[in-house]
This record gives sequence, structure tokens and C-alpha cells, in this order.
Amino acid sequence: MTHFSEELAKLKECLLAMASHAESAVARAMRSLVERDDTLAQAVIDDDTILDQLEIEVDDIAIHLLAKAPLATELRLITVAMKISQNLERVGDEACAIAKRALELNREPQLKPYVDLPRMATMAIEMLRESLTAFIERQTETARAVIPRDRDVDELNRQLYRELSSFMIERPANISRCLSLMAVSKRLERIADHATNIAEDIVYLYEARDIRHAGLKHEGENTGG
Amino acid sequence: MTHFSEELAKLKECLLAMASHAESAVARAMRSLVERDDTLAQAVIDDDTILDQLEIEVDDIAIHLLAKAPLATELRLITVAMKISQNLERVGDEACAIAKRALELNREPQLKPYVDLPRMATMAIEMLRESLTAFIERQTETARAVIPRDRDVDELNRQLYRELSSFMIERPANISRCLSLMAVSKRLERIADHATNIAEDIVYLYEARDIRHAGLKHEGENTGG
Repeated sequence: MTHFSEELAKLKECLLAMASHAESAVARAMRSLVERDDTLAQAVIDDDTILDQLEIEVDDIAIHLLAKAPLATELRLITVAMKISQNLERVGDEACAIAKRALELNREPQLKPYVDLPRMATMAIEMLRESLTAFIERQTETARAVIPRDRDVDELNRQLYRELSSFMIERPANISRCLSLMAVSKRLERIADHATNIAEDIVYLYEARDIRHAGLKHEGENTGG
Repeated sequence: MTHFSEELAKLKECLLAMASHAESAVARAMRSLVERDDTLAQAVIDDDTILDQLEIEVDDIAIHLLAKAPLATELRLITVAMKISQNLERVGDEACAIAKRALELNREPQLKPYVDLPRMATMAIEMLRESLTAFIERQTETARAVIPRDRDVDELNRQLYRELSSFMIERPANISRCLSLMAVSKRLERIADHATNIAEDIVYLYEARDIRHAGLKHEGENTGG
């Protein structure tokens, strides 16, 4: 193995470590909310530095690799890796934000059993996981299949937003809890956005075709943010 | 001028065009809100494709340049340009989201005169502008000075969030308008985050020192999102 391909392997390894941290951060943040577990919420917040460090490491390796990458495909791979890493770091930030909301919500009685939020979380985590699989296994079809699922998460977010708005209007005593739950829903929606960004970058990487901004926006601008 | 430096100049030019579009999108979105101007709001939304296209163009030039960049400083410049472009594209998305909120808010009577929101917008736009000046003029001090100002915008966002929450509790009829205004405030806060990301990337570029994640996070996770 040449030095170049060793470093490239290291880059992928870092990205996989980031992906697994990001995924587990989201899952644990949601568990801290559903199980009302402050210790777990705090752990999610504390562990965020791991992702921050890994993002810096990925950039360092990438810059180093760029200097000796001879082929256009390699250059694309490296720049896409930097983008994936940035998205994963943001997923960690979203998970932290959810954990902080859990800390607030755990101080008050539970409004109702959480059903849609864990469902959204599962969808977002699966999108993340499949994007990364697509990256590692070079499966553009898997990446392409992730993209339209963003709409389902957007729709769930919109639905929750409407539901929580009515809840507020019916009982103003619920307002602060509803706002926190809306924020959690919005964060989950953004995690799905990050997964979609990653999937789009992977299609670009392996098909050399830029599909960003091709169809509808996946920002869900109209709800909760 | 060599071909390489010509392309590099083109890269910077594209970034400047993006910055000026992004800045004007934010300013126009805010004007559509304050002056209750639907036509302007719609124009902001329609014009967002310009930023999307420019982002793709920056990436294309960057990948092309990377293939012939001989020096580490050039590689850094190019990758930082790609990051700045991504942040500017996101600023455009935030401006669109504000314009969409304006369209909603323009359907209802105005809750109260907007004072803090335009102030936040001015702060965020200045942060953006100075980050870009720092990039072009290679002024790391200017970039460094942008970073702590993110906290002021966060603080304004938190303050507005508290104020709007009380408003909702006092008069549930205000809830939907308050939610929309909270969303605008959150979007402005995120524009300041993007400006801060750009400023940090510029410090990294010109001082070869990574200051991301060095101090406090600038996500404002605890309010409105």
C-alpha cells in the first residue's frame, strides 16, 4: 500500500468514526428525552468535543492528501470527505441541542407520550446510516434513495408543528413545553437535511453529477424555523 | 498573469458575487417583513437560485484549481473558498425562510413595530460583510473581531425569545404570529453563525491555525431552535 492510499484509508476511517459518533449522539439525545434521563443528556453534550476534534482531523488529513492527489476523482473524493465531515459535525450540534431541550423538558411533567419524535429520529438516523453506507460501498443508488425520504421527515415536522400549535392555543400553560418539543422536531428535521446533503455529495462524487439544488429545497423553511 | 492565478481571481470574484447576493437577500427579506411587501418577499425566494448556481460554480472552479495547486497555502485557500461558498449559500436559504415568514406575517395585523429584528439583521449583515472584507484584504484581525459579536446576536435572539414567549402566554391569539417572529429571529441568529464560521475559516486560512470549537459554541442551541 502506498502512503497515499494509507492516508486515504485513514480519512475514511475518521469519517466512519464521525458517522458512528453522530448517529449515537442522536440516538442517545432522543433516549435522554424519552426516558427523561438528565445524566445521559449531559453526556451527549459533553461528548460533542469528540466530533469537533474529528472534524479538524479530517480537514488536516484532507489538506495533506490534496497536495499529492494526482487524479480528479481523488480530488473530488477528498473535498466530498470534508463536506461529509462538516455535515456530521453539525449533526452532533443538533444532537446537543436536543439533549439541552431534554434537560429543560425533564424539569416539567411530560405533556404526552412521545410517538412522532422517536419516529422522526429513527428516520433521520437511518438516512444518515444509509448515506454513509453508500459512501463506503460506492452505492449511488443507495444515496439516491435517501434523498426523497427527506420529504417524509419534513412532512412529519410540519404535522407536529401544527399539532403543537393547536395544543398551545388550547392551553397556554403548555406553551413552554410545546416550544421545546417544536425545537426538538426542527432539530430532527435538520439532521435529515444533513443526511440529504451527504447523499447528494455522494451522488456527485460517484457520478460526477451535481444534483444539489436540482429539485425542491430540503430545508423545510416553512415550519418551526 | 498565469492561467492559475486567473482562475484564482475568478474564484474570488464568484465568492464576492455570492457575498453581495447573500447580503442583499437578507436585507431585502427584512425589508419585505418590515414594510409588509409581498412582491419583495417573493423576489427574494425566486432569486435564491442565483446563489445555488454560484455555489456550484465555486465548487467547479475549486476542484479544477486543486488539481494544479502546488502550495499548501493555495490548497488551504481553495478549500476555505469552498467552505465560505457553502456558508453563503446557506445565508441565502435563511433569507428565503425569512421572506416566507414575511409572506405569512403580512396576512395578519402587525403585532408591534419591529425594533429588535432589524437590529439583529443589521448586526448579522455587518458580520458577513466584515468577514468577506477580512478574506479579500487578508485581515485576520478583522476576522477575529467578528467572532465574539456572535454572542451579542445570540443574546438578542434569547431576549426576543423570552419576550415573545410571554406575549404568547398573555394572549394566546398572538401565538401564531409570535411563532413566526421567533422563527425570523432564529434565522437571523443562524446568519450570524454562518458569518462566524466564515470568520473562523479565514483565521485558519491566514494564520494556519484552527480556532473552530476553541471556545464556546456559537449555535445558540438553547433558544428557538
